[in-house]
Amino acid sequence: MKDSRRSFFKKSIAAIGATAAASSFLPGMPLFNINSGSNKKMKLSFRPYRLELKHTFTVAEASRTFTPAVLTEIEYDGVVGYGEASLPPYLGDSQESVMEFLGRVDLSKYDNPFDLETILTDIDNIRFYNTAAKAAVDIALHDLVGKLLNQPWYNIWGFNKDKTPNTTFTIGIDKAEVVKEKTKEAVGFKILKVKLGKDNDKEMIESVRAVTDIPLTADPNQGWKDRSYALDMIHWLKEKGVVYVEQPMAKDRYEDHAWLMERSPLPILADESCQRLADMQKVKGAYNGIVIKLMKCTGMREAHKMITLAKAYDMKIMIGCMTETSCAISAASHLSMMCDWADLDGNLLITNDPFKGTTVKDGKLVLNDLPGIGVKKV
Amino acid sequence: MKDSRRSFFKKSIAAIGATAAASSFLPGMPLFNINSGSNKKMKLSFRPYRLELKHTFTVAEASRTFTPAVLTEIEYDGVVGYGEASLPPYLGDSQESVMEFLGRVDLSKYDNPFDLETILTDIDNIRFYNTAAKAAVDIALHDLVGKLLNQPWYNIWGFNKDKTPNTTFTIGIDKAEVVKEKTKEAVGFKILKVKLGKDNDKEMIESVRAVTDIPLTADPNQGWKDRSYALDMIHWLKEKGVVYVEQPMAKDRYEDHAWLMERSPLPILADESCQRLADMQKVKGAYNGIVIKLMKCTGMREAHKMITLAKAYDMKIMIGCMTETSCAISAASHLSMMCDWADLDGNLLITNDPFKGTTVKDGKLVLNDLPGIGVKKV
Repeated sequence: MKDSRRSFFKKSIAAIGATAAASSFLPGMPLFNINSGSNKKMKLSFRPYRLELKHTFTVAEASRTFTPAVLTEIEYDGVVGYGEASLPPYLGDSQESVMEFLGRVDLSKYDNPFDLETILTDIDNIRFYNTAAKAAVDIALHDLVGKLLNQPWYNIWGFNKDKTPNTTFTIGIDKAEVVKEKTKEAVGFKILKVKLGKDNDKEMIESVRAVTDIPLTADPNQGWKDRSYALDMIHWLKEKGVVYVEQPMAKDRYEDHAWLMERSPLPILADESCQRLADMQKVKGAYNGIVIKLMKCTGMREAHKMITLAKAYDMKIMIGCMTETSCAISAASHLSMMCDWADLDGNLLITNDPFKGTTVKDGKLVLNDLPGIGVKKV
Repeated sequence: MKDSRRSFFKKSIAAIGATAAASSFLPGMPLFNINSGSNKKMKLSFRPYRLELKHTFTVAEASRTFTPAVLTEIEYDGVVGYGEASLPPYLGDSQESVMEFLGRVDLSKYDNPFDLETILTDIDNIRFYNTAAKAAVDIALHDLVGKLLNQPWYNIWGFNKDKTPNTTFTIGIDKAEVVKEKTKEAVGFKILKVKLGKDNDKEMIESVRAVTDIPLTADPNQGWKDRSYALDMIHWLKEKGVVYVEQPMAKDRYEDHAWLMERSPLPILADESCQRLADMQKVKGAYNGIVIKLMKCTGMREAHKMITLAKAYDMKIMIGCMTETSCAISAASHLSMMCDWADLDGNLLITNDPFKGTTVKDGKLVLNDLPGIGVKKV
């Protein structure tokens, strides 16, 4: 322990006695005053990381066996916040582009780590793209601030951690026998998400249904080309116990989605059509709800704003993820209690998760009491 | 000091050494864990208070020399949060109705004071009305939670306290000589708000202009009956250096306000037309911006949401007040840095302010470093 810190402890301990005796004002005592004009600085570091997938993962547009990622840390006065950028290739970002972006982020110029609005707005303004890189800073900063406040984010935001939804577990596109096997392995989940959008949609659903009768969700990932086909499929999916459908057609087909929403017996959620807060006005009349993902929307702060907006618009909310470690999954889980549905299973699909955080018990997201985003390195 | 507390201190102090030696993890140490399943309970108390006005205050619809209020306190484990309901008679609430409402609020059933979403939603659902009573609970709860987190709310929300706007100082309707005197007394303010809406609008503005050339804002308080008259007045007010106009006509005249907004050279703000978040969709196409007041919108949490929504709508925001003590004024000031304009002078208009908190220096709102809403009893 450094001398300055030791003397700080002595003063703090003396202060505990004095303050408490005077007013019983324990929790509010000035133990750690961030505003004391210190010259402490935040320091961002990052490194590439490769997320190894348990199974080859196939969606409408591609297959893959790993997902590139970049792990971040922000250190401030001995406290470290963790963050992550997950980079599925279809988003157009790479480890190189993320690290190049992160190299432009200078946190040393900010005196107050709590000033998230200023810091994150500045970072957003560095460049229009690189939302995952921005999320990697946002998440680490939230983890840091939560640790400085010594509270988990659900408490800081005023949410009830017991009100988390069940999370879906995702079944990727595959041959019928493989799909049946994967469905059998999804023991304990109360709802499954089925990837659709290739030429075997009905076979996918029938294969899952051959194994289980729990509720399903469907994600064609823009894979349907025709709106009448989409509507017929949705009617059929409803019969099969599907509860909502994500992004049926191409992301720029607002009018076709509005047509579909008007007729659909199931809620239609905008995923690729709704990346960020600024997209919400556009999707408002065309979809029943939105899919929020930290990697799309630059992180926890904007996701929190999107939830406020979605509720004002009376739109449904699903909080989803990419293939991610428990770092980004845990970060997203702090918002899940404000969402209608969650699809936060990305950490369950990898073999080399470097973090422990939010878990799933009997299908439901379970948050711990750790401060910040609630993760520890394993 | 009670024994249980003394032994808690001992353990905490031991923990400081152990945790810090192991990881230098000072601020995040488990000094005060709200989730530890304790049987601590929140307790709400309240009392009527009469705010004595320095000057008789006249707006379009009435005059008065005092404003009734109710002061609240929420105590939790020796920590006390302060709140307030201010009750200008035209809002339809009284000390009696507020105290009757507060008598129905049972905070003892909540284990976690941080769970603001649940607690404040429950309280909102007690009854449709009584927004000021709800604000009195909301503010005290925010003050309590901020003290438990040992941080001011601008830090918890991630706002920069140096970015506060100037506040207007309000000149009530009166005879020309009195208006000139009041304007002379408003030394140091960089912008003044002039109440209009009776039969002496031009005289009011001319009287102020005879004394000062600083920017003005105008508040007819629904006082203008005709939209063409309103438009002519606004053109004239612009020539006189007015920067925005609040609620020109009756609050239910959305179409007339939409007509006016389309033609007005100055921003038109919805005050009486926009009480709460749920009103924002309605005023969106009819006004350029909104006036947020804690007593209208049930408090800090909903006000925070309204700011997120207004920014998504690209609407201007003014944060205003009633005649209030420094308690509610300070609470509102934590949101002011996210607003285009502020009118937080209510505490400056009374002679018996029981609190010290946010102040005004050279016309600008100045927030202190105290935790919670940043007030102390005087």
